[in-house]
Amino acid sequence: MTSNVPEDLYVVVPAGGSGTRLWPLSRAGNPKFLHALTGTERSLLQATFDRLTPLAPPERLLVVTGTAHAAGVARQLPELPDRNILVEPFARDSCAAIALAAAVIHRRSPGAVMASFAADHLITDQVEFAYTVGRAVDGALAGNLMTIGITPTRPETGYGYLQCSEPARRAEIQPVREFKEKPTLEVATRYVESGSYLWNASMFVWRVDVFLAELAARRPDVAEPIGRIADAWDTDAQEDVLAELWPTVPKVAVEYAVMEPAAAEGKVATVPGDFGWSDIGDFETVVRLLGTDVGEGGRSFAGGVPDSRAVVVDGSDVIVVPAGGRLVATLGVRDLIVVDTSDAVLVCDRDRAQDIKKLTEILRDRGEAEYL
Amino acid sequence: MTSNVPEDLYVVVPAGGSGTRLWPLSRAGNPKFLHALTGTERSLLQATFDRLTPLAPPERLLVVTGTAHAAGVARQLPELPDRNILVEPFARDSCAAIALAAAVIHRRSPGAVMASFAADHLITDQVEFAYTVGRAVDGALAGNLMTIGITPTRPETGYGYLQCSEPARRAEIQPVREFKEKPTLEVATRYVESGSYLWNASMFVWRVDVFLAELAARRPDVAEPIGRIADAWDTDAQEDVLAELWPTVPKVAVEYAVMEPAAAEGKVATVPGDFGWSDIGDFETVVRLLGTDVGEGGRSFAGGVPDSRAVVVDGSDVIVVPAGGRLVATLGVRDLIVVDTSDAVLVCDRDRAQDIKKLTEILRDRGEAEYL
Repeated sequence: MTSNVPEDLYVVVPAGGSGTRLWPLSRAGNPKFLHALTGTERSLLQATFDRLTPLAPPERLLVVTGTAHAAGVARQLPELPDRNILVEPFARDSCAAIALAAAVIHRRSPGAVMASFAADHLITDQVEFAYTVGRAVDGALAGNLMTIGITPTRPETGYGYLQCSEPARRAEIQPVREFKEKPTLEVATRYVESGSYLWNASMFVWRVDVFLAELAARRPDVAEPIGRIADAWDTDAQEDVLAELWPTVPKVAVEYAVMEPAAAEGKVATVPGDFGWSDIGDFETVVRLLGTDVGEGGRSFAGGVPDSRAVVVDGSDVIVVPAGGRLVATLGVRDLIVVDTSDAVLVCDRDRAQDIKKLTEILRDRGEAEYL
Repeated sequence: MTSNVPEDLYVVVPAGGSGTRLWPLSRAGNPKFLHALTGTERSLLQATFDRLTPLAPPERLLVVTGTAHAAGVARQLPELPDRNILVEPFARDSCAAIALAAAVIHRRSPGAVMASFAADHLITDQVEFAYTVGRAVDGALAGNLMTIGITPTRPETGYGYLQCSEPARRAEIQPVREFKEKPTLEVATRYVESGSYLWNASMFVWRVDVFLAELAARRPDVAEPIGRIADAWDTDAQEDVLAELWPTVPKVAVEYAVMEPAAAEGKVATVPGDFGWSDIGDFETVVRLLGTDVGEGGRSFAGGVPDSRAVVVDGSDVIVVPAGGRLVATLGVRDLIVVDTSDAVLVCDRDRAQDIKKLTEILRDRGEAEYL
């Protein structure tokens, strides 16, 4: 059953979202996935590309992105064929992006298996990742809507969870009983202790025909216009059809539209992934994963920007992201996040880190949109 | 007695010190007095020059500075004759700087009156300042070592005080009984309430012959080498004499060496000055004087740097100095000083502002001297 996998596997990379919780490091015009956050020369998108091309060559790798970042994606991934950059006129949430990719793939290679991974996640163990994807492809060929759930390492309240029937074991396929929303700390602690819950990292693997059939049954309001758009893709009708139909596509997450109801019917399975995953979602995560201890209560991560440096004196729980090529010095402060970039500086209480998104809205209201 | 004053008055501007408490705005190589802190095109030194040239033309205005800033002074004050820039080989404290100026002036115009004012102070009422200097010149011609003491506006613990015999009245000459060191808050409060104490701003006015005689009597170890150096000044022997004698000049403040003991003998008098003075000594002062309220608990001063801006959200007692041409945003923080410059950012607890000087020493120890 698995003999035809390497030839048939398509990989999809949704590259959207500006990473607002990482402002001012991440910007609408220069989002997280285009950044070389890992301290190497390669951006998160390029690192994702490097991780995935052993699984599928560029001819079978599709990036779905928005108008603002099409050029950035094209320039960062010169090996990617033009026709494999699917540019959405504007964002319609994850169901539209993934359905578009599935429908385009289905027209190029009916019944192919597709695997979808975000453009801005970090994975440290590439070999274990590849092995896990291979196991998930097995599950997809058997007709399941597969997810790769991340083995949790802490009671994180910032992610959704996948509930399995029993404690998850390495790379073993098992049904997903339910998708769980972001839990409270108490609930998250119980999840992690049980061993039967995995983080939902929106990693999906399925046969495109299986997924499109589920979508058509559950959300014809998405499936119908996406199907017509895919029919016109790469033809001279593409633009007119997009103009007509794209605004009608409902904004909905693929979990809510397809995966949750399918799980309730026993159609979703998972493979636990334990390969050093992070979504690089906020400064705490970035600096915990990539930073170094600078002493006196400080931890710093320069984001690969040369000549950036941090000096913390008499600090306590100070996070410094000196990504502007400057010296950032703190004196006698605690529980702060300090981020320096080429044109903006943020000083934020650590307890308010989740409000950085709100701050960016305030900045827009105050006429500082150029910094967003 | 005053008829010959305008012709004879020399003005001296000691331009030393890097303004360490204003790091990173002020640097060793780019000290406070060379900055356009007042938000105009003119630096503090230039503003001082503008304030003093109505009292003495550039031919009778001398700047005493160090080797590191001689070029900066020369470029910022093109009207100042080369021979009126006295460059110390290295700093030997205020007594040496002022004595050198007095001795050079005495050789150019024996018995002239000299008035000395720091290069980096701010004075808002130029007319009242000029009037007060005129009164002080009267006192100097009468043979007093005159100071201009600043009428205190708050119980400041960061300055020394001049104790007068009775409450000081506008521009009225009266004896100084004693120079007082920086007081505690309790003592400072008592000083201010009494009305008989003035801030010592190191503004001195005296006949150079009177001062040099006092210096020779009290500190021959300063007067003797300074006298020989002044004899050689502007001759081809200047460099050799400086090399031989300058290292032998004791490092001592002029208050300690001359003014305090002279006051004890009734030789020092003062004129109260009430002309909107500030020494721009720390960020609190800078932002209190020159800043604007930016709302939500923030006060900001961009130091005249275009395109600098501050946004404070949910703050409390936040001081922002966005002097790097960037946006500085704070979220949910309190009691902080945030300073942005072109190559360094400081985030400092307000209660630790007096330790910024220590921070610069730590930076030097850690190999970051390029930022000092």
